[in-house]
Amino acid sequence: MSTVFASVGTTLDGFMAGPNARPGNPLGDGGLTIHRWVFEIDAWRERQGLPGGSGEHNASAELVEENFARTGAYVMGRRMFAEGELGWPDPPPFRAPVFVLTHAPREPWVRQGGTTFHFVTDGPEAALAAAREAAGGKDVQISGGAETVRTCLNAGLVDELEIHLAPILLGSGTRLFDGVDPSVRLTPDRTVATPQVTHIRYRVG
Amino acid sequence: MSTVFASVGTTLDGFMAGPNARPGNPLGDGGLTIHRWVFEIDAWRERQGLPGGSGEHNASAELVEENFARTGAYVMGRRMFAEGELGWPDPPPFRAPVFVLTHAPREPWVRQGGTTFHFVTDGPEAALAAAREAAGGKDVQISGGAETVRTCLNAGLVDELEIHLAPILLGSGTRLFDGVDPSVRLTPDRTVATPQVTHIRYRVG
Repeated sequence: MSTVFASVGTTLDGFMAGPNARPGNPLGDGGLTIHRWVFEIDAWRERQGLPGGSGEHNASAELVEENFARTGAYVMGRRMFAEGELGWPDPPPFRAPVFVLTHAPREPWVRQGGTTFHFVTDGPEAALAAAREAAGGKDVQISGGAETVRTCLNAGLVDELEIHLAPILLGSGTRLFDGVDPSVRLTPDRTVATPQVTHIRYRVG
Repeated sequence: MSTVFASVGTTLDGFMAGPNARPGNPLGDGGLTIHRWVFEIDAWRERQGLPGGSGEHNASAELVEENFARTGAYVMGRRMFAEGELGWPDPPPFRAPVFVLTHAPREPWVRQGGTTFHFVTDGPEAALAAAREAAGGKDVQISGGAETVRTCLNAGLVDELEIHLAPILLGSGTRLFDGVDPSVRLTPDRTVATPQVTHIRYRVG
């Protein structure tokens, strides 16, 4: 059975995005700094069409590689898709089917390199079922954004939550856990630490 | 030169205390769960006058022992003192001088086992200077509460912040980082992980 996991960057004060997040500024003011650790990593740069050889290969890079390798399909919220659609390279970094939660029906959009966006209008459970089917025995990754991760946590649809805890404070913005049911049970089962970021993986439920 | 460090328990959603914190309920509703990991640890139980032998000795226990051993003096906020005064065992767990930030002058209060409470009315810098002097080359620990840790972080008085990140959500309460200047620089330099808690130590500044 596929594991459903979410892999989420937050600040030490709990923000997934800075203040003033909106279309065109999806991570909010200062929000890029949450993900600074990933931008220099070879595995991530290679997927973005940047010169991978120029990136760093460290413990975080191995974790990013592992997440790419285990993922057979993605589930994504519509706002994250709308932003990404404007900015992802061609081929997009997913190289797997991506199931986009939306209210607007749309034909599948086939991109180069193995990424096809499918648009799902009947909710996260249906999207996860389709993603599981498409994943071919691999795992399903919930890409985000914040609202999608929250909805899936509250609905008991997430098996594993990995937090990439950046050692920065933003002071305001969008919090990952605002609106998450406090009765969600989390058990840490792996920590990978570097001077740039602390990766903590939790089993959920 | 002594290192000034704070050692603070928070929930995964960033709370040092639950909602409705007040005299008599200093950790707020559900706040005791933030510190659940420590209650079964031999080193902590021994300091509380509980049967230490009955406690667990794990990676967290070694960290608690290390913190006791390195601390030559403590600085504490007046609310934490007022609560603790009612509940600490005799001898109290500090076994070292404790400098209490207060507005009310009071004679030093000598307790058994090496703990003497000194009352400092001229602010955190004066309290830290006195604690450094008293620490005899050992380190100074800022005990809390939240407001004292925040004040000292914002004043650039903390060298090291250790967070004991409990894998729980409270949803509301007192946040450690509310009101901390986002320009405070933090660099993780040690992580100790157990299934009950993730200890992350940050160098500050």
